[in-house]
Amino acid sequence: MSGWLAVAGLGPGDEALVTAEVQAALAAATDVVGYTPYVARVAPRPGLTLHPSDNRVELERASHALALAAAGQGVVIVSSGDPGVFAMASALFEALEQGPEEWRDLDIRILPGITAMLAAAARLGAPLGHDFCAINLSDNLKPWETIEHRLRMAARGGFAMAFYNPRSKSRPHQFAMALEILRAECGDARLISFARDVTKPEERLETVTLGEARPEMADMRTVVIVGNAQTRRVGRFVYTPRSTAGAP
Amino acid sequence: MSGWLAVAGLGPGDEALVTAEVQAALAAATDVVGYTPYVARVAPRPGLTLHPSDNRVELERASHALALAAAGQGVVIVSSGDPGVFAMASALFEALEQGPEEWRDLDIRILPGITAMLAAAARLGAPLGHDFCAINLSDNLKPWETIEHRLRMAARGGFAMAFYNPRSKSRPHQFAMALEILRAECGDARLISFARDVTKPEERLETVTLGEARPEMADMRTVVIVGNAQTRRVGRFVYTPRSTAGAP
Repeated sequence: MSGWLAVAGLGPGDEALVTAEVQAALAAATDVVGYTPYVARVAPRPGLTLHPSDNRVELERASHALALAAAGQGVVIVSSGDPGVFAMASALFEALEQGPEEWRDLDIRILPGITAMLAAAARLGAPLGHDFCAINLSDNLKPWETIEHRLRMAARGGFAMAFYNPRSKSRPHQFAMALEILRAECGDARLISFARDVTKPEERLETVTLGEARPEMADMRTVVIVGNAQTRRVGRFVYTPRSTAGAP
Repeated sequence: MSGWLAVAGLGPGDEALVTAEVQAALAAATDVVGYTPYVARVAPRPGLTLHPSDNRVELERASHALALAAAGQGVVIVSSGDPGVFAMASALFEALEQGPEEWRDLDIRILPGITAMLAAAARLGAPLGHDFCAINLSDNLKPWETIEHRLRMAARGGFAMAFYNPRSKSRPHQFAMALEILRAECGDARLISFARDVTKPEERLETVTLGEARPEMADMRTVVIVGNAQTRRVGRFVYTPRSTAGAP
C-alpha cells in the first residue's frame, strides 16, 4: 500500500467553513495527527487512529506523521485555519528537510482552509480590503526586535495589518509595546478590531480606536486587525476602501 | 418577505474548495449577482435569477445587489477567492456608504473563501509560512508610486509577499519595474513563484530566483509569491521556515 500525507486546514471553528477537499481527506485517512483540540474536531470511526499531541511539539508531530506515511498509512495532519499561515505546513517541511532523503518522494499535499484573519475580517466587514500584512506577534521563533521593526515597516507602508498570537500569559507585556508603536506610527484615531473565538458560539467582536485600545482586549484566542489610514465604519461594519489617493 | 445579502467567496476555481456555508447561501438565494465568469460557476435552477455583469463595474453591481435585497430578495454576490481580499466586499461597503441610510439595516453577511494566494501557497508548499504581505499590483485604484513604496517597505521589513493582479495587457511594463525594485532590495538569489490558474485543470506552477524572473512569467491570472531571506526549496516544494534568527 502506498502511503500519503495531507496537511489540512480545518478553518477557524465553524464546521460549515471546512472545505469538501479537507472532508474527503479525513474520510480517506487511516491516521489523524495534530494538536489535541484540533484532533478532537475529527469524528472517530473504525479504521481511523487519532494521534493527539501537545502544543509546541510541531516538529516531532510532523516527523511522526511523515514516518507513518512512509510506512504506508494515509495520514492527515489537522491544523486550525489555513495550514500555510502560522500553522503546521512550515513545520512539516522543516521535518522533511531534516528527515531521511526518501521522505521527499512521499505523496504530500497541503489542503488550504479559512485562516482566522480572513474569517475575522468577514465578520467585521472588510478591514483587509486593500494591501495588508499578516504578522505573528509571538516571539517564540523570532526576536521581539524583528516584530517591532515589522510593525514600523508595515505602518510606514500604509498597510492594514492582521496579528496572530497577539498576547499570552507567558508574555503579557509585549502587546502593550506593540500598541505604543502603532499609536506612534498611525495616530490615536486609527481603527483596531479584536476578534475572539471567531465563528465559534462564544465569538466576540470589538472595534475601537488605537487611542482606546487596551492590551487586555487581546489574548491568544484573539485575532487583531488594524486598519490603514482610510479604514472606517459604515453602519455596524468596518471596512477599508479599495482605493487610496496617495502614498503611503 | 425580509431580504438579505451575502457576499460569497467561491475560492480559486476547484469546486472542492467552496465552503458548505457558501453552498447553503447559493441554495437559498433568489438572485445571484457578479462578474460573468463567477456567475457562470452557479448552476441555474427554477426560482433563481442570475445577474452577470462586466468587470470594473463593482460599485454598480454592489448597488444593484443592495437594491434587490432592500426589495426583499435573497441575494448572493459571488466573488472569486475570498471576498475580503481584493474582491467584492470592500466595493459592497463603498456602495452601502453612498446609498440610502436604510440600506445599513439590511441583513448583510460576508462569507469567506479560499483566496488565491493561500491556494497558491498550498500548491507550492508553504512560502507564506512566516510574516507576509498581500499587495495588489494594479494601479487602477492607487498611484504606482504607492505600490513601489510598499514593495520597499515589505522588503525592508523582511516580509514574504504575495502579489495579486501582477500584470495586464493595459499595463505590461510595471511588473518589470516591480522586479527591479525587488532585485535591488532582496538580491538576485531570492525565490519567486508564479502560480497561474491555481487549482484549475490548466494550473501552472513555476519557481525561479529573482535573477531568473522575467515579466512575461506573470499575467492577470497569476498570483506571484516572493519569499523572505529564509525561503528555500526542499524536494519539489518551496517553504518559509517558522523561525528567523534576526532582524529584519
